[in-house]
Order: sequence, then structure tokens, then C-alpha cells
Amino acid sequence: MFKIWVLNGPNLNLIGERGKIYGDDNYEQLTQTLAKIAESIAVQLTCLQSNSEGQLIDWIQAARHEADGIILNAGGYTHTSVALHDALDLLDKPKIEVHITNIYARESFRQKSLLSPVVNAVIAGFGQKGYILALEHMITTLKAQDK
Amino acid sequence: MFKIWVLNGPNLNLIGERGKIYGDDNYEQLTQTLAKIAESIAVQLTCLQSNSEGQLIDWIQAARHEADGIILNAGGYTHTSVALHDALDLLDKPKIEVHITNIYARESFRQKSLLSPVVNAVIAGFGQKGYILALEHMITTLKAQDK
Amino acid sequence: MFKIWVLNGPNLNLIGERGKIYGDDNYEQLTQTLAKIAESIAVQLTCLQSNSEGQLIDWIQAARHEADGIILNAGGYTHTSVALHDALDLLDKPKIEVHITNIYARESFRQKSLLSPVVNAVIAGFGQKGYILALEHMITTLKAQDK
Amino acid sequence: MFKIWVLNGPNLNLIGERGKIYGDDNYEQLTQTLAKIAESIAVQLTCLQSNSEGQLIDWIQAARHEADGIILNAGGYTHTSVALHDALDLLDKPKIEVHITNIYARESFRQKSLLSPVVNAVIAGFGQKGYILALEHMITTLKAQDK
Amino acid sequence: MFKIWVLNGPNLNLIGERGKIYGDDNYEQLTQTLAKIAESIAVQLTCLQSNSEGQLIDWIQAARHEADGIILNAGGYTHTSVALHDALDLLDKPKIEVHITNIYARESFRQKSLLSPVVNAVIAGFGQKGYILALEHMITTLKAQDK
Amino acid sequence: MFKIWVLNGPNLNLIGERGKIYGDDNYEQLTQTLAKIAESIAVQLTCLQSNSEGQLIDWIQAARHEADGIILNAGGYTHTSVALHDALDLLDKPKIEVHITNIYARESFRQKSLLSPVVNAVIAGFGQKGYILALEHMITTLKAQDK
Amino acid sequence: MFKIWVLNGPNLNLIGERGKIYGDDNYEQLTQTLAKIAESIAVQLTCLQSNSEGQLIDWIQAARHEADGIILNAGGYTHTSVALHDALDLLDKPKIEVHITNIYARESFRQKSLLSPVVNAVIAGFGQKGYILALEHMITTLKAQDK
Amino acid sequence: MFKIWVLNGPNLNLIGERGKIYGDDNYEQLTQTLAKIAESIAVQLTCLQSNSEGQLIDWIQAARHEADGIILNAGGYTHTSVALHDALDLLDKPKIEVHITNIYARESFRQKSLLSPVVNAVIAGFGQKGYILALEHMITTLKAQDK
Amino acid sequence: MFKIWVLNGPNLNLIGERGKIYGDDNYEQLTQTLAKIAESIAVQLTCLQSNSEGQLIDWIQAARHEADGIILNAGGYTHTSVALHDALDLLDKPKIEVHITNIYARESFRQKSLLSPVVNAVIAGFGQKGYILALEHMITTLKAQDK
Amino acid sequence: MFKIWVLNGPNLNLIGERGKIYGDDNYEQLTQTLAKIAESIAVQLTCLQSNSEGQLIDWIQAARHEADGIILNAGGYTHTSVALHDALDLLDKPKIEVHITNIYARESFRQKSLLSPVVNAVIAGFGQKGYILALEHMITTLKAQDK
Amino acid sequence: MFKIWVLNGPNLNLIGERGKIYGDDNYEQLTQTLAKIAESIAVQLTCLQSNSEGQLIDWIQAARHEADGIILNAGGYTHTSVALHDALDLLDKPKIEVHITNIYARESFRQKSLLSPVVNAVIAGFGQKGYILALEHMITTLKAQDK
Amino acid sequence: MFKIWVLNGPNLNLIGERGKIYGDDNYEQLTQTLAKIAESIAVQLTCLQSNSEGQLIDWIQAARHEADGIILNAGGYTHTSVALHDALDLLDKPKIEVHITNIYARESFRQKSLLSPVVNAVIAGFGQKGYILALEHMITTLKAQDK
Repeated sequence: MFKIWVLNGPNLNLIGERGKIYGDDNYEQLTQTLAKIAESIAVQLTCLQSNSEGQLIDWIQAARHEADGIILNAGGYTHTSVALHDALDLLDKPKIEVHITNIYARESFRQKSLLSPVVNAVIAGFGQKGYILALEHMITTLKAQDK
Repeated sequence: MFKIWVLNGPNLNLIGERGKIYGDDNYEQLTQTLAKIAESIAVQLTCLQSNSEGQLIDWIQAARHEADGIILNAGGYTHTSVALHDALDLLDKPKIEVHITNIYARESFRQKSLLSPVVNAVIAGFGQKGYILALEHMITTLKAQDK
Repeated sequence: MFKIWVLNGPNLNLIGERGKIYGDDNYEQLTQTLAKIAESIAVQLTCLQSNSEGQLIDWIQAARHEADGIILNAGGYTHTSVALHDALDLLDKPKIEVHITNIYARESFRQKSLLSPVVNAVIAGFGQKGYILALEHMITTLKAQDK
Repeated sequence: MFKIWVLNGPNLNLIGERGKIYGDDNYEQLTQTLAKIAESIAVQLTCLQSNSEGQLIDWIQAARHEADGIILNAGGYTHTSVALHDALDLLDKPKIEVHITNIYARESFRQKSLLSPVVNAVIAGFGQKGYILALEHMITTLKAQDK
Repeated sequence: MFKIWVLNGPNLNLIGERGKIYGDDNYEQLTQTLAKIAESIAVQLTCLQSNSEGQLIDWIQAARHEADGIILNAGGYTHTSVALHDALDLLDKPKIEVHITNIYARESFRQKSLLSPVVNAVIAGFGQKGYILALEHMITTLKAQDK
Repeated sequence: MFKIWVLNGPNLNLIGERGKIYGDDNYEQLTQTLAKIAESIAVQLTCLQSNSEGQLIDWIQAARHEADGIILNAGGYTHTSVALHDALDLLDKPKIEVHITNIYARESFRQKSLLSPVVNAVIAGFGQKGYILALEHMITTLKAQDK
Repeated sequence: MFKIWVLNGPNLNLIGERGKIYGDDNYEQLTQTLAKIAESIAVQLTCLQSNSEGQLIDWIQAARHEADGIILNAGGYTHTSVALHDALDLLDKPKIEVHITNIYARESFRQKSLLSPVVNAVIAGFGQKGYILALEHMITTLKAQDK
Repeated sequence: MFKIWVLNGPNLNLIGERGKIYGDDNYEQLTQTLAKIAESIAVQLTCLQSNSEGQLIDWIQAARHEADGIILNAGGYTHTSVALHDALDLLDKPKIEVHITNIYARESFRQKSLLSPVVNAVIAGFGQKGYILALEHMITTLKAQDK
Repeated sequence: MFKIWVLNGPNLNLIGERGKIYGDDNYEQLTQTLAKIAESIAVQLTCLQSNSEGQLIDWIQAARHEADGIILNAGGYTHTSVALHDALDLLDKPKIEVHITNIYARESFRQKSLLSPVVNAVIAGFGQKGYILALEHMITTLKAQDK
Repeated sequence: MFKIWVLNGPNLNLIGERGKIYGDDNYEQLTQTLAKIAESIAVQLTCLQSNSEGQLIDWIQAARHEADGIILNAGGYTHTSVALHDALDLLDKPKIEVHITNIYARESFRQKSLLSPVVNAVIAGFGQKGYILALEHMITTLKAQDK
Repeated sequence: MFKIWVLNGPNLNLIGERGKIYGDDNYEQLTQTLAKIAESIAVQLTCLQSNSEGQLIDWIQAARHEADGIILNAGGYTHTSVALHDALDLLDKPKIEVHITNIYARESFRQKSLLSPVVNAVIAGFGQKGYILALEHMITTLKAQDK
Repeated sequence: MFKIWVLNGPNLNLIGERGKIYGDDNYEQLTQTLAKIAESIAVQLTCLQSNSEGQLIDWIQAARHEADGIILNAGGYTHTSVALHDALDLLDKPKIEVHITNIYARESFRQKSLLSPVVNAVIAGFGQKGYILALEHMITTLKAQDK
């Protein structure tokens, strides 16, 4: 049974609260939706959120032994954190970067991700559904590796 | 019945030919895979490829009246074409940008897309499967609009 | 009888269609307006539009032998094309660059024209009327040369 | 009867004096030409020139109550003055920027206008005739507003 | 009795006239408000405004002998004037820079002040009240020096 | 009774300890001064300090439900944190940014604040008194909203 | 018998026509000169010219199966085309880039070639003779490979 | 007896685990080696590691009263943290920056340290031995101060 | 008898007043020294100073008919004024730029002169004596022209 | 009999020694090959190598009187030496720049030559054969001049 | 017996002469200190200094056959010399770069070393002791290779 | 008797040879002119020229003990040499930088001097007479020091 971690960074606990560009569901509803999908396909899913850069690094390090792949939306740290870049680089598992909005159509400081060069794939602008597409692709990837 | 166009730009007709980073299937196999999926879900799919920037613009303009949404991989023009940017900006339909590889992990001139600010979503690094995920999301989007 | 060519680049065939910043008339109406003016002052006017950079260069090269002056709106290629720059540089005839909108008040990538250094004059933000002012000035210029 | 102001900035009082790129007529002749045209079409024209940035701002502020539109060639201040930019931005009347030469084909520091983003239109490289074309367009614009 | 000068640069005489981001009071009302406060605390206040960079420098030079401190909003010259920078640098009195709006949240050319490095403090985005806060702080500072 | 939070970021707990540019009072004295003022005007004041970026974000998020306005000095995170920028952007309450020193007169990396574009006002270089001025202005603002 | 293609890009069909820096022979004379040399050494030479970027890419793709090596002067596209860069990168044959003039001594935008990193050699400033030197070197290279 | 702190930042707890460029010993072995050396020369050594920027700042602040000197490898925070820069700047003790690899020969974003301007010395590319050399130099420095 | 104008820009009327880097003599003493030298060599010298950019341009324009050569220290306008650059460019007389201090060893914004490209010579860092050396050189130049 | 000098700069004496990208022959073999060719066509060839920038300038200066043309590979000085640029600029003889490798496909600091703007032609990436092609072209050029 | 060369570049012969930031000992004393250490551990040490870039390259080339490792402080050439970079790159021996001061805390042009990417390790800010630490590390490295 | 050294860098031995912008006299004539002046005022003048950067540094170092002041024209090294910058910085004597032409009106790479920040004065564009003015000023300076 595959173990997949979904890590969310700063402020993503607030999605859905203010009728914004981040979709209608709030963070709890999103994690429940993901949990149901995971259950239906017999995947062990762990959803974690933190506003702290250090905590996110701790989790990515832990994932080295405890997860088979990670799906990461690092929020504002996406654009500034060399430390997260290094933690991801040290993680030799499938890694997918998700952004709810199309970050490339927003402020200039949000158009460059320091993390993209060390993940396997990036998906942006698909709304909250991006997590689901990432999850599906993660499983396909893990099954292919498993053979 | 939704009409979806998949437009591919320069050199994408060569994917799969040289055992490279662009996946195992060649361009014909990719279009056949997409055609099968489209058939199974009763979508009318048109796959077009050209090495010419002008031809791609002609198609995007035509899509204004003949398509319900487009999926675009503009290849090398992604990074240099203001004219494609303008054509996309004038197209008031769902638009998804696909890149087979993770362009953000490649040469610096390939990390910036001029087109991303005028599409709805971007998916990169999912291999040829990116087209399939884009197609699925396109249909979901169109159905949601249809209601 | 002077022969003047009006060359329009990518997406300019769509002006007027979507009630945008490019004026009320569509491309056909614009060319008809220009045609009437040309007729009234006995000028032989040719209006051409293409989305293809190569086609525009072909026309500029042809203009070397077949036209007395050109009025050019190169659309998105204005900002990216060294090849158009070179074609214009090789054309030893009066050349006027037209932009319907005030490009200097728009996105930063649209504020710099590669073509302006090799034309005689630039007019921007006068709406579709800019073509008419350019036409009038072209005729004055040609008549002055003719003496 | 429309009141139109033509404002000229530093060194434009010297045009024509030294057989240069700024045309054959001197400043007095240019203003007389413009005066005649204005007279013939029953427009009240005021031509003002100053080498002082502050004086130009004073006039633009005065134009808020005393003019219907302004035509401005700010000379060297075009490229350096945020204060003129602000004065123009506060003036809610038609504003046309004129340059006698094609500034985009000259020194790099002369290719960028700080004022263009806050005017309605820009005309450059039409020689002294640019003022006349601007004047004609200003009247057309004012008449259209008047309806 | 302390002598404090409030110097306002280009276009600040227009605040309040057009219901804009610069507050509800017009320039005259602002100076009256400041005058009343000054009266109540027995400070001799002089309010001066000019659109001319040279005039502002003249006043700053005069302040060397005639004022105890200055409060300055240099408007558009804030971002371009080395000459004002030098005049302030030569003035060995308390100097406070005021901006009515939050300049750091506006156009990029307005986010950098050439004057800030040679004043004692900067206040921005407090609306017209910024002048009052600056005045209060100026008096506190002068009293502390006086002891 | 208004609830106002004063948040201080990294190293601001050390002010006053080393007779530096940050004023004479230490952090405890500063918070006591602020507490007295708050008491005298019947405002409920909460002073918080942390060296951790994540902790500051947690507090700003909490402020969404528990405070009426915040006064923030984010120290070194001011210049590097997109995550703090986002947290502030999500907080729909009055927000004032304080810097004890005139940051615009210091090292170049300290002259640009990522937070200024998403606060209402900025005050810098007024020493520790800047907190008091910000507090006074916050109350004025909240009272005006209250009417 | 080696098959070598000489591809010329935009405006190179006009060399020699205007007594410029591109040499005395016109395009037809140049191709005849090359044809004679090719005949004398029993090489099958194909000379192609197009103003269209897409056409050049089509030819480079065709060269993958139909040519043994290519000599390319991409004219103005040299400096702007990622798509040509990609086409060349996919061509696993000897590739030589030719420029008639010394592009490094010309305008700054002409001093950087996007194509040089994916060819084997570059020759510039030898006039039209550069094509002949490239042809000779191509044959030497192909013979060496042949052994 | 001198008290020296060795602070390690994000991901440095993983050195040695994956046979990489960071040396053969893992973090525990490194700290044991250092401990032995410290013991032999009667120095009180404290080794601390954290992935959290805030935690590292807390320790550097604590070092102001509890340590005689620090040796710091801030990992990815080296290149992005103004807050760490400030904490170090406030620490008036000998400070040595260590990097296991030669950071100047790696990615461009890793070649610039924000911390180097506020430490006494930098050592990079000596492998794990860099810590030992730094320790030796720290003791020499402290002994020299002690006299 | 040669007529030479010495023009001084903003803040240069204050030299010598504050025992700074601009020399011991004040502005009046400097002009007296220059006057004496001029008298001794039968040159008609005019010394003018203004804080206003427009006034300086007026003088440079007047110098076209009334002076044989100018010596200019434009103070802070040296680094920002395209308008002064243009006025100088239109003056077809010997022009020498003087700076009392070595501007190349000061702040970065003071190291670039917009005026140097349109004067004949530049002298900086010779203190007030730079004016005298410039005066001597001006006379030599004028005498040589006179022959 | 033509006198041609081949000047090689720093480290080019080591080509061929370490089976690298600089070709199979060592420096001595290269000069012997060139000598044989020169002999066969009755050209007087001088090959010189130095690691010293000053020595290379001395030789280029000497070439003004003693050589008919020079072929130069300045090695690492190519990218940094204004002094070599000036020496070449003063040499009014045919000058060809040679690089054994395709420098445009290497490190970014090696892609820009300061010398190319002052030579007649550049050849790069033809291996050691580049010297021979340059030699042939030099002789053709000299013979053409000789007529 | 290991042969180690210590190469010093321009101006390093003057260390210690003027009580500056380069330490108390002069160049001769430094070389004597190093000589004593070398003797005590039976290493053959050669200390060389030159102000000439070419001479330093000659020595690095010679070191290819005559030394086992080099310790280099290239002084001012560190920041500008591609030629030294190439010479070091061709030297397949242990190479350590030393700077007496912490160059990263000095002028911006001194913070970037062109040499660091082609050496094994860098040590800066340890004063003259940096040479000794480098020497010790060099020996450890050579012994490890020797096994 | 004052000892003054005039140091000239690369290519300055060629001035006057080719009727260029560097004046009519050749290097020998210039040194003779300077010698005569020196003799007449009883100064011991030494004129030295070298194309080698290292030689110039040697002389500047020697000047520390053997000269009272230096006048330097470093030619092309002016713009690239950190090593010369350091040598000048270590020389605690009056230093004047001379350029025959107005370097600020030439190519952009020639407009920035690395040496100006470490000399006392700069004179440019006075032709060869700049050396004489520098010499006169040097003597005045030395006499003033002498008192």
C-alpha cells in the first residue's frame, strides 16, 4: 500500500475562507476529498500543513523513510527558500509541485519557483483539482516503478 | 459534443523518435492515444502540429469559432512569441498549456513562458500524460460551464 | 500614381470583433475606409495582413520593387523580430510604423519596438485613425521627394 | 470654440536655427503655421515654451481649467521627469505627446518616455508636421466628445 | 519659539481637488489645519509649495538660517533629484520626509526615494495626517535638542 | 474596546541592549510604554515577539479573528518573506508597518520591503516613538471605521 | 556521395543587390559558386532559402533523414529563435553556422547567437567565402567520420 | 574553559547518509569527532542542529551570554536570511562560517552568502575537516584575546 | 577680448560655508579669484549661479550668441538632466566640465555624468583650482582657434 | 613574400598535452603543420606564444611595421582585455581571431569576446584546423589587397 | 617528500608594511614561518610572488610537472583573470585558494572570485594563518592520495 | 627637489603616430615637452611606459619609496585592473589620473575607471596638455604639503 504525503505550506490552511481565487472548498474539505479518493484506491494518505519553513523541511526529511512520494504546495516559501530546495533535492522519491492558481499570471515575484528544478512535475492553475491530478499521477508513477 | 483542439508547435512532431526526454511514444502514437480517450468520452478531438508560428496563430484564431477549448504546447515559441500571446489573449475559451518535460528544471531561457499569463492552467513534467490530464480537466471545465 | 502598401501583422485581422481597445471598425471596414481615401486622392493602395513573420518579410522584400512606401503595423512581431528589422533596413523607401493603441502605456514587453530604429516615423494611440494620418503623411513625403 | 494649448519644453525654442534634424522652420515660424491652421478652423490656440520644468508643470495645472486639450513636447524632460508625469496624470483632458524626430532611433536614454504612459497618443518622427497632425486629431477627438 | 517649515513639491497644491488617493482636504485646508495646530502649541509654521525644483532648493538653502526644522514632501522630485538630495544633505537641521500615500505600494519608479538617505525619518501612507504626525515628532525632537 | 496587536520579528527583543541605533529603551521598557498608553486610552494591547517566521504568520492568521488592527515590525523578514506578504494580504484589518531606523538610509538589501505593498502605512526612522505614532493612528483609523 | 544542405534564412536572398556589407555576388551567384565547388569534389549540394522560421525548421527536420550535414545562416532568426535551437539540437549531424559579416562588431542584439551552443563550429566575417570554408571543413569532417 | 558552539542549519543532519559530496561521516560521527578534539584540548563544545531559521536565531541570541565563539554552517539559509545576518551582526564574539563543499563552484544562487559580511572568517571546500580547522582557529583566537 | 562664462549649478553657492570637501573659499571668494585672473589676462569673465535647471539652460542658450566658451559645474543636475545635455549639445563653443571633488570616488549615482559626452573636457578632484585650470585651458583653446 | 604572424595567448602552449577538447596535436606539432603549409605557398610565417598580456601587446605593436597580417588566439585574455582591444584597433592590417573550440557553447564568461569588434573575422569550433583556414583566408585577402 | 608551491600575486609582497588589514608580519616573515613549518614536517616548500599575471600562469603551468599541490593567493587577479582560471583548470593537482582578509565583506568587485570554481577549497579571513591551515590541509590531502 | 613619476600604460607609446584622437605629438615629443617644463621648475621627472600590467604595478610599488607623487595614464588597464587599483590604494602619495581623450564620450566599457576611486584627481579630454596641467597641480600640491 503506497504511502503518499501531501504537504501544504504557509496560509494554505486558509483556502476557501474568503471566497478568493483559491477555490470554494476550505482546507478541511480539501483534505477530506483527498482522503476519500485515497481510500477508494487503497492509498495511505497523510495531509500536513504548517506555516513554518523549518517544519516543512522536517517533514520532507521524514518522508525519506516514511513516504513513497510527496505532493507539495509550499505557498510563499516556493519563491524564497533555498533550504526547502535542498531538502527536496535530498529526497529520492517522486515529488510533484502543486499550485492552486496559475502563479505565472500573478505578481512577478510569484512567477519563479526555486523548487521546480528539483521536483519531477509541476501543475498550476487547475484549482484545488490540481492536488487530485497530482495524486493520480503519483500513483501511476509509483505503480510503474513497482513493476 | 465538445470540440477540443490540441495544438502542438515546432519539433513536437519528433517526440519519441530518438529515445529522449520526451517519452517513448512518437507523435502519431500520442495522437492515437488521445483520440481513443476522446472517443470513449464522446469528445470531438482535433490534433494539429506545425513548425510555423503563423500557422499556430491561424489555428488559435480559428478556434475562436470552431473549438470549445484548446490544449497547447507551443514548443520553442513558448518563450519568445508575443504574437502567440496576443492570439491566446483574444481567445475567450478555456486554454491549457502543456509541457512534456519540467521546463523549469532546464536551460534558463526555457524557464519563462510568455504564454502562461494568458492561459488558465499550466502542467509540466508529467510526460506525455500531461496531455491526458489536461484533456480530462478541460472536459470537467466545459461541463461545469455548460450547466 | 503612388503605390502604397499597408501591411498588418498577427491578430490585426481581428480588430473590432470583440469591442476592445482596438476601435469599433473591424479589419474589413478599416481597409475599406483606407481604400476610399486612397481613391479620392488617386493613390494605389494595397492592404495585406498575415499572421506569419515570413510572409510579412516576403512582402517587405517585394515592396522594394513594387511599392513607393509602406505603412506597417507588425503586431506582436514588433517586439521580437530581428528578421523584420533587417527586412525594413534593406527597404530604401519611406516607412511609417503604426500602432492603434498607445503601446507605451501597456505591458512592459510591449513598450519596446525593434522596428522603430529603422522606420522614418512612429504613430501610436491615435486609434485606427493612425493609419489615415500615416497615409496622409506618406503622400506628402512622396510628393516632396517627387519634386 | 475649443481652447488648445501647445506646450514646448527645453531647447525647442531653438529648432530650425542650426540646420539640424529638427526641421527647417524656426520656433516662431512653427507657431505661426499652427496659428494660421487654428484660425482657419476657429480654434483658440496658445503656444508656450519654457526651459523650466516647474513652469511646464504650472501650465499643465492651469490647463485643467483653461484648456480643452494639450499637445506636449517636453524635450529632454520627457525622459527624466516624474513630476511632469504626475501633472499629466492629474489632467483629465485629451493629451498628445509629440516628438519632431524619431526618438526611438536615437540614443538609448532618449528611447524611453516617462510621459507616454499618461498621454492618449504619441507621434514621433513626422518632423514639425507632427504638431499639425496632433492638432487635427485633437480637434476630431474634442468634437467627438462634444456630441 | 520654534520655526518649522513645511515644503511641498510639484502637484501637491492639487491634493483634494479630484477625490483621489490624496485625501479629502485640499491644499488650503491642509495648511489651515497645520496652522491651527501650530498656533495651539506656539510654533511658528511656514507652509510653502512650488512646482519648481530650483525654488525648493532655494527654500531648503534658506532654511539653513531661518528655520529650526523642515518637513518635506517633494512629490515627483523625490525619485529623480540629486540636487535636492544635496541641498538636504547640506542642511544640518531635523528633516522629516512625508508622503500622503504609501509610495511603496505604487509604480516601481515611485518606490525609491533619493531623499530618504539624507533625512531623519520617513512617513508614508498615513494620508494628510502624516504631516501632523511629522509636526508632532518635529517638536518633540526640537525640544529634546533644546535641553 | 479595540484590540490591537503589536508584532515584532527577529532580533527586536534585543533592542536597547547594546546602545545601538535602535534607541535607549529595551524591549520590555518599550512594551511597558505602549501598555501604559493603551491603558490610558482604553485599548486592549497585545505585544508579541518571535524570531520565527512561521510563528509570525500564525499570529497574523489569528489576528483575523482576534484583533482589530495590527502594528508590525518584521525585522529581517521584512525584506525576504513572501509568506508574510501573503498572510498580511489575507488579513482584512488596518495594518501599519513600523521600522525603528530609517531603513532607506541603510544597506541596499534593507531598503526594499516586501510587506509595504500590502499594509496601509509605513513609518520609519522615528525611533521607538514610531510605535506610538502608529498606535495613535491605528486608533484614529479604527474610530473612523466605527462610525 | 555526401549530401550537404546549405540553408539560408530571412533576407539572405537579397545579398549583393545593394552594394552593401554582404559582398559583391548576389544570392544566385553565390549558390552557383557553391554548386561548382560541390561538383568538382563530387558532393551533392542543396541550397535553400526562406524568410519563414517554420520552413527552416521543416528543412532542418528533413535533413535528419536526407542530408549528411548542414551549413546554416539563419539571418535575423539567429538571435531570437528557441525553436530553431531545438530543431538543430535534435539533428545529430555535423552543423556549421555561417555569418557573412562579423556579427560581433555590429549592433548589440546581433552579437549573441542562440544557435551557436548547438552547432559544431561558427565562422563569421569571412564574407561569402565563409560558406566555401565551411563546405570544405564539412567534407573533411564527413570523410573523417566515414573511416 | 572556553565555551564554543557549533551551529548547523537545515539538512546538515543528513550529511553522510547518501554517499554524497558532503563527506563520508554522518552528522553524529562528525559531532563525536569534534567532541573528542574538544575534550583533548579542554574546550566545552556544544553542537546544535535545526531546520528552523527562528531556532538558529534563538541560539545565536543565546550565544551572546552563554558562548565564547560560534562556528556556523547555516545551510540553505546562508543565501537568503537577512534575519540571521542581523542576529550575527548583534553577536560581538568570534564567528566563523563553514561550508563543507566549495559553494563558489556550485549553482549561482549558492555562491553568495548574506552572512559572510558579518563573520570573521569563511572556510569552504575542506570537507568536514573545515569544522576542525575552524575549531582550531577559534581557540587560537580566543587564547589571543584572553591575554 | 574673449568672453568666458562660468556657470555653477545647485548648491554650489554654498561651497566653503561648512568646512567641507568643497574647499576653504566660499563662492564669493572663488568668483573674486577667478575675476582677478581674468582681469590679469584681459578676459571678460561672467560668473553665474542658479539652483534652477531651467535657468541654467537659459544661460547656455544665451551663451550661443554672447560667450566664446563656457566652464560648467552643473552640481546635482550633472547626473540627471537630459535637458542640460541637449542645451550643451546645441552650443557650438568650447565647453569644459568642472567638479571640485573627485566624483568618481563618491556615491554610485554621482559617478556618471550625463553631460560629459557633450563637453570637450572634464576635470574633477582638483578642488576649486579646477576652475582656474579650466580657465587657462579655455584661453589656450580660444587663442588656437583664433589663429 | 607575405609576412604573417600567428599569436597565441595564455595556456595555448599546452594544447594536446592532456587529450582534451583542444585537439590531438600539441603546440609544437601545430606550429610545424602551419610552417609546412606556409613553406609550400611561399609565405613567411612567425608563430609566437606567451602567457603575458603585455608581451602580446608588444607583438601586436611590432606587427604594425613587421607583419602583413596577424592571426590571433588570445586565450583567456579574449574576454577581459581592453588593452589588447586597443592594440588591435591601432593595427591597420588584416586580423583574424581564432578559437579552437566553439566558445559560444561553453561557460557564459567565455561567450563574449572583447576583441571580435576590432578584427576582420572570427572562426571558432573548427579545432586546430581553424588556424589553417584562417591562414588560407589571410593569403587570399592579402593577394586581393596587393592587386 | 611532497613538493608544495605557495604562489602570491600582485601587492602581496607588501603585506605587513603598513599596519593594515593584512596582518602584522611582512612577506618575508610569512615565508619564513611557512618554511619552518615545512621543514618540521619534511615538506619541500617553494614560495613565489609576482605582480605579473603572465608570470603566475607560467608558474602554474610549471607546477604541472614540478609540484604536488599549490596554495594560491592571486590578489587582484582573483577577480578578473580568465587566463589564470584556465591555467588552474589545466592543473590536475590539489589547489587551495587563500585570502588573508574576508573578501566577502569588502568592496563588491572583490566578493566574486573567478578562480574558486576551479580550486578544491577556499579559505578567507583567517589572516596570515590561512596559509598555514591550507598547508596542513594540503599535506593531509596528499598523504591520503598517496595511500 | 620633488621627484615626480609619469607612468603610461599600454599603447600610449603609439600616440601621435597615426594622426588620431590622441594629439599631434608622439610619445617621445610628449616626454621631451614634460622634461623641459620639469627642468624649468627644478623638478626631477621620470617618464615610464609599459604594455605590461605587472610592470606598472612594480613601478607603483617602487614609487612608494622613490617618488613624491605620480601621474598615471593606465590606458586599457584603467577599466579592468583590480590589481592596479590595489597598488594605487597602497601608495600614500599624491596621485593624478590623466586621460588624453574624453573617455566619458567614448565606448561604454571605457567610461568607467576602476582607478578613479583611489586617486586624488582626474583630468580627461584636455589632450596631451592634460599631463602638463596635472604636473602643475602636482607641484602646487607637493609645495603645500611641504610647508
